[in-house]
Amino acid sequence: MGAAATGSAAERLRARLAPLSDLARVLQLLEYDQETAMPRSGAAARAQQSATISGLLHEGMIHPEIAELLDAAEDEGVDGDDAALVREVRREADKARRVPTDLVREMSMASSAGQDGWARARDDDDFAAFLPFLRHNLELRRQYAACFEVDEPYDALLDDFEPGMRAAEVRAVFGPLRDKLPALIASAGERSPGVPTGPFALGGQRRAVELLLARVGFDRESWLLGESVHPFCVTPGRGDNRMTTRFSESSLESILSCLHEFGHALYEAQIDPALDRTPLGMGVSMSVHESQSRLWEVFVGGSIAFWRGAWPDVREALGSSVQGWGDQPESFVRALMSVQPSLIRVDADPVTYPMHIVLRFELEQAMLAGDLALEDLPGAWNDGMRDLLGVTVPDDRRGVLQDVHWSIGAFGYFPTYALGTLLAAQIWEAARAGLPDLDAQLEAGDLAPLRGWLAEHVHSHGRRLTPREVIRAATGRDLDAGPYLAYARSRAEGSLGQ
Amino acid sequence: MGAAATGSAAERLRARLAPLSDLARVLQLLEYDQETAMPRSGAAARAQQSATISGLLHEGMIHPEIAELLDAAEDEGVDGDDAALVREVRREADKARRVPTDLVREMSMASSAGQDGWARARDDDDFAAFLPFLRHNLELRRQYAACFEVDEPYDALLDDFEPGMRAAEVRAVFGPLRDKLPALIASAGERSPGVPTGPFALGGQRRAVELLLARVGFDRESWLLGESVHPFCVTPGRGDNRMTTRFSESSLESILSCLHEFGHALYEAQIDPALDRTPLGMGVSMSVHESQSRLWEVFVGGSIAFWRGAWPDVREALGSSVQGWGDQPESFVRALMSVQPSLIRVDADPVTYPMHIVLRFELEQAMLAGDLALEDLPGAWNDGMRDLLGVTVPDDRRGVLQDVHWSIGAFGYFPTYALGTLLAAQIWEAARAGLPDLDAQLEAGDLAPLRGWLAEHVHSHGRRLTPREVIRAATGRDLDAGPYLAYARSRAEGSLGQ
Repeated sequence: MGAAATGSAAERLRARLAPLSDLARVLQLLEYDQETAMPRSGAAARAQQSATISGLLHEGMIHPEIAELLDAAEDEGVDGDDAALVREVRREADKARRVPTDLVREMSMASSAGQDGWARARDDDDFAAFLPFLRHNLELRRQYAACFEVDEPYDALLDDFEPGMRAAEVRAVFGPLRDKLPALIASAGERSPGVPTGPFALGGQRRAVELLLARVGFDRESWLLGESVHPFCVTPGRGDNRMTTRFSESSLESILSCLHEFGHALYEAQIDPALDRTPLGMGVSMSVHESQSRLWEVFVGGSIAFWRGAWPDVREALGSSVQGWGDQPESFVRALMSVQPSLIRVDADPVTYPMHIVLRFELEQAMLAGDLALEDLPGAWNDGMRDLLGVTVPDDRRGVLQDVHWSIGAFGYFPTYALGTLLAAQIWEAARAGLPDLDAQLEAGDLAPLRGWLAEHVHSHGRRLTPREVIRAATGRDLDAGPYLAYARSRAEGSLGQ
Repeated sequence: MGAAATGSAAERLRARLAPLSDLARVLQLLEYDQETAMPRSGAAARAQQSATISGLLHEGMIHPEIAELLDAAEDEGVDGDDAALVREVRREADKARRVPTDLVREMSMASSAGQDGWARARDDDDFAAFLPFLRHNLELRRQYAACFEVDEPYDALLDDFEPGMRAAEVRAVFGPLRDKLPALIASAGERSPGVPTGPFALGGQRRAVELLLARVGFDRESWLLGESVHPFCVTPGRGDNRMTTRFSESSLESILSCLHEFGHALYEAQIDPALDRTPLGMGVSMSVHESQSRLWEVFVGGSIAFWRGAWPDVREALGSSVQGWGDQPESFVRALMSVQPSLIRVDADPVTYPMHIVLRFELEQAMLAGDLALEDLPGAWNDGMRDLLGVTVPDDRRGVLQDVHWSIGAFGYFPTYALGTLLAAQIWEAARAGLPDLDAQLEAGDLAPLRGWLAEHVHSHGRRLTPREVIRAATGRDLDAGPYLAYARSRAEGSLGQ
């Protein structure tokens, strides 16, 4: 792939890796296009293309020259970014070498087929039609996990999303949540007014989203807002920051969703450009990524100070449907942030949210271990929703078929959502301590100080640091559920917890 | 790239080439995205990505295993599609091996930089700002041409767009056009009412374009219509047919433009799916491609019979601005197809059009030979426009800076536009002969017979046949300017030439 043959081993390693970074960015673009533009009948060809690029990425990472350059770089001695590069590439290459490229391509193809099969099965509320895709993807992930020497297969899968974390650590974090949240949910629910129900005109929502995004720092010159069935964020390259949202007349989910995706996109946008075209130039882990989206969604989006500044324009944009909330934003924000057990994870409030994840984590451990027959998954799902959240699942569309993850083989991903929510509270606490004038800045629409604090303490590092190091650098300690539980308790006491 | 190691040499060759086809499709997607969605600040990263993929394609084609598989396939003996595959791949691989991969990547990077530089220079009407990009791209194409043993450097460049054709052949075709067209243009111009001038509401134009596209065969399930500064067409994969158009209140160019791009997209959509993921599964040459776009633009779009069926709905969609043309389409179509010397190639009518190309062909031969100092290009352009078309160029924006081609290094491309226009007339003549009820079908909006005739005689072949063989298969003879000149003469006599 055109490696330069000159310079230090670290320089040659960078030259060798740069085209792989390009291909990884192109994969993100393929996803963006598939979800926002591609005719559905193009799915088969796109699946081939994604598998081809995934295969090239894998072949590139296991190439003997990478191993030689890593050895040579260590022999020459590296420090600073070069040391971080060697550390990360060795970790990735060691993992990649354990996996046959054919399995990588097969997982990519099964992932594409599963996504399509899931979308159709969900449209038809037909779990039986989804079952073969689930079975195939699960089997491939079992084969994948078996490539690694781990305490339990789940660890191998989790590590792809949360480098260095083990399932046992997740269980240790989730145990107390499972114990403590139900009482807090009940109490916070009693004190919540209920989420805003529409109809909310789509034109008004679009203008409101534009206003809010402009306020937080969305720059039209280098950012793009698309629409897709499920909101997501990709960064196909420096200066090309993309997020999507979705609009529904029956809710204002577009508002919190756009702040959520903005947080993801801002993370990528603020990574040190010196790390571009290297494996260091990306978010450090899925939970840290999610902490950034949740920070903007829950803590900026739930800030009365922020809304004091934003409300007049947003209220005008949303028009008659929100006039009842008056000219002060408090009651609107209380409604927007209502705690209320519900069926759909992505619409869940921040207090009930972790319970959705606890359920998925328990189910996917059981599936992976073979303790749960896949035919019994819908029943187990529905039982879990009743036990954990007290809700009755009316159909699989709003139950086990609601999320794409298992259809694409992304077992081990879900825990990072809840970990990210916890971490968001912890980082928000640190940001507040670091920015004594934050409330005034939020109200004035001066978000540059917050963006700057996040850039300095979280974003700019990219993968220079490990996830644990990033968390310590930003907050002074390891991941700690304390700030999140304090937030949940304050919600239970009727405060907005800011 | 994951070649299967089993089967015949031809099968192994196919397996080896399939990922390269995937990457070539991805390159098309990168272009589509860049022109329809990408924030401009993403251009530098995108340029790297395109260069990386271009380099991979080149490295893939010059890999020793390709040459070994070609030899092995010939030793084993091949026929049918396998013989065509070996012929085409040997041609491409022989060409690719002459060119250093570094030059391929450098041309890709210079092409991206040139496109950006050109867009800015054109916005500012600043030829001097464009000059360095032009100079660099021309120099790289000189280096590229020098890799080949050809009668003249132009032949090496032309061959990339029109395999097997020489500059001398183009001169032999263009000579008579240069002689005969001026008188025909003058006479046809006198008999033309002038093109429709607006304002035409954009909403109405969008509806009209949708109606027309639905009528010719645009299928929403597998086709996508985007908007871009310059209309174009790409096919990122089977079942994923994309075209763009542009809308301006001051003209109805969107109507002919959408028929033009439809013709390109239909060609790719109707290639035999058995050729997918091989180098045979694409249009055979740029002139044959252009013949398909021009056939739909000039000969369907200029057909009174077609418009008799389409006019009532289109007229209603376009609203008050077209009511003056009455409830019969004749006078509207005469206006739409007006012959009238003008400044901009892409807006030119089919009779003046070839003169725009003759000018570009003469200028790029002079630039390549070093007979024209690049500083003198605007003057030479303006002189040529006066001599060939009798128009005065008011500024470089509407003169030498109007087209993207030279900025991306695409010297040798322009002739295929005029050749395609000639070929469209020749193929249309053959289609009319093969479809005796064509006028009735056009009027009834039954375009399936025409699409089917084109599929059978032109599209389905892909690159199974050479360009010359495709032309012979469709029309029974070699490229011949006769049908086009007959069309131009009929326009000079005041007929619409159908």
